[in-house]
Amino acid sequence: MKRIAILGSTGSIGMQTLEIAREYKNEIEIVSLVAHSSIELLEEQIREFLPKLVCVYNEDKAKLLRNNIKDLPVRVVTGMDGIIACATDNSCDTVVAALVGMIGILPTIEAIKAGKNIALANKETLVTAGHIIMPLIREKNIAMLPVDSEHSAIFQSLNGEKSKNAYKILLTASGGPFRGLKKSSLQKITTNDALKHPNWRMGPKITIDSATMINKALEVMEAAWLFNLSIDQIQVIVHPQSIIHSMVEYVDGSIIAQLGLPDMRLPIQYALFYPERKCMKLGERIDFNRLKELTFEEPDMDTFYGLSLGIKAGRLGGSMPTVFNAANEWAVARFLEGAIGFLDIPRLIEEAMDNHSIIANPSLNEILNTEIETYDFIKGLRT
Amino acid sequence: MKRIAILGSTGSIGMQTLEIAREYKNEIEIVSLVAHSSIELLEEQIREFLPKLVCVYNEDKAKLLRNNIKDLPVRVVTGMDGIIACATDNSCDTVVAALVGMIGILPTIEAIKAGKNIALANKETLVTAGHIIMPLIREKNIAMLPVDSEHSAIFQSLNGEKSKNAYKILLTASGGPFRGLKKSSLQKITTNDALKHPNWRMGPKITIDSATMINKALEVMEAAWLFNLSIDQIQVIVHPQSIIHSMVEYVDGSIIAQLGLPDMRLPIQYALFYPERKCMKLGERIDFNRLKELTFEEPDMDTFYGLSLGIKAGRLGGSMPTVFNAANEWAVARFLEGAIGFLDIPRLIEEAMDNHSIIANPSLNEILNTEIETYDFIKGLRT
Repeated sequence: MKRIAILGSTGSIGMQTLEIAREYKNEIEIVSLVAHSSIELLEEQIREFLPKLVCVYNEDKAKLLRNNIKDLPVRVVTGMDGIIACATDNSCDTVVAALVGMIGILPTIEAIKAGKNIALANKETLVTAGHIIMPLIREKNIAMLPVDSEHSAIFQSLNGEKSKNAYKILLTASGGPFRGLKKSSLQKITTNDALKHPNWRMGPKITIDSATMINKALEVMEAAWLFNLSIDQIQVIVHPQSIIHSMVEYVDGSIIAQLGLPDMRLPIQYALFYPERKCMKLGERIDFNRLKELTFEEPDMDTFYGLSLGIKAGRLGGSMPTVFNAANEWAVARFLEGAIGFLDIPRLIEEAMDNHSIIANPSLNEILNTEIETYDFIKGLRT
Repeated sequence: MKRIAILGSTGSIGMQTLEIAREYKNEIEIVSLVAHSSIELLEEQIREFLPKLVCVYNEDKAKLLRNNIKDLPVRVVTGMDGIIACATDNSCDTVVAALVGMIGILPTIEAIKAGKNIALANKETLVTAGHIIMPLIREKNIAMLPVDSEHSAIFQSLNGEKSKNAYKILLTASGGPFRGLKKSSLQKITTNDALKHPNWRMGPKITIDSATMINKALEVMEAAWLFNLSIDQIQVIVHPQSIIHSMVEYVDGSIIAQLGLPDMRLPIQYALFYPERKCMKLGERIDFNRLKELTFEEPDMDTFYGLSLGIKAGRLGGSMPTVFNAANEWAVARFLEGAIGFLDIPRLIEEAMDNHSIIANPSLNEILNTEIETYDFIKGLRT
């Protein structure tokens, strides 16, 4: 029996994790759930999966929920302490870290310290604090299973191989909804245009990150930490069909790739049951007779300027990835509100990066301060 | 230091194995070489690699060679006993089994019995005698490394995985020089047309087998033995670029694939150094920016009727794969001489299969007798 805490149960990854828990009832027990404020959905989840502990980050919503589920033997906690309580609860063995944003870092660190295995879906954790997290994982000797389809593909392609034999990673990108367009056509993009991803169903933040290809920059940084490679050993390849989820090229020229239909439930299931593979119950198998072709393109670093900024931030290291990430988070939120244009996203990121003096090996406090400083700096810019 | 015997050193695989031995001089020692009759090339190889033992199968040619290399401290042996002496020599640890045809079976069995690791390039060994070879390999606990690009790809795609989790094998086929043609256009195919393979440089027998796609049928049977799967768990997919060398689909729907440029030196090198991967010295890496696309088609079982006959032979099992293989061997030799047409190859195979009464679990003697009986039967047919 796997005993699981889901940090972010009402988000896209959290809900798909629960779909798997539903299919494998006899093998997965939900110990705790964490949500920000969507208490209606959370209540449904509680009534179905009966966790003993839930956290609602928003205190007012937590009170409301407590009132609504008086009939159930569930403890409702709140705030950052509440998230950490869920992530470190004695009866859980695996934490699905699927909170959106830098709020996910501290609970993940605490879960690792408590010896939990991590199924990692929160990108910010490694992008901003990889230098803190990776040594901790080695010290605690826990399993860090990536949930992202690309990182899961790389992990699977490294199975049974010596990582010293990896020559480079070929990280695939769908190219998003604006692949093939030039900068000039992106000027008038609306939020709705950017939310139409051709292959994947995901939350709004990551869907915009996919449209700017900034998602891919975050994945490059994450892959470098996870697989102990330099940023320049990771090559982004545009592969519009999203069938090859990434590849590892070995020193001898041989390439191992992982393929699957674009369905996040596959990498989530893999992370939950690793090293076991469970028979597919959800989704479909690839039919090569229907697939016809897989194509590849070089990424357009001019149109998707945010990608090249992110790779630059990764090379610079220290606190710069935090600035890149925070500036992007802020800009995407404004874009989703309709307050700024699509091309303002990389422009604001670049200004924030140019303004920043790098801190080498920042502490968690310095990382969180850098985030706040970045927000403050961007707010002061004319948008 | 790897101490290697090459059975078939003057053939395509043998020569490419020696190219690798030349590059990795300090790690590979050539202990013995076996050739059929090409003594000029063999002499060059002897003078470069200085094996202590060589076998020339043809006795007259062996005498000539002995005379020509009097100045060297090399023992020249002959016939089947000579091949076996090379394959079982005490100072060798790995045998590259690259003889063409059923003559390769007995020396491979003897090498396994002598505890040698096998780098297997001879298809007939497992196609006709898999039921004898595989239990022997398990008994002797030796490594059986496939040299074929497809089987090497499957082997690599199974690395670090539990084979019980394999759902099926996706065996790729280039489709050969006649892909897309209909039966009617194959009527007047000449030997030269059939010898023009689009992607691979190989010996003439295997190049014709690739043009008829009978090669793929032999590979299906070989894969079933090597990876302990049923014939129906192996799906042939036409992939004209020969970049994905094959794939394994797991129970969870995830597919692991191995990719590389079409260069036999890669799987040969992998087999020689396994589980190590050596830095690429020969050949080139894939450049995805130049690659553009990978395409897939269903095999045309009508035009390439030999493929469906082979799959049928594999399903029937027992001595039927031997009949299929022997009839094909005989027909290809006649086609190479210009004595029969291209479409006569599957026609003769089908007649031989129809005429045969299957022996279940044939002994090696029964296998070799079945081969002779098949030859005799076909010779009696009007061609």
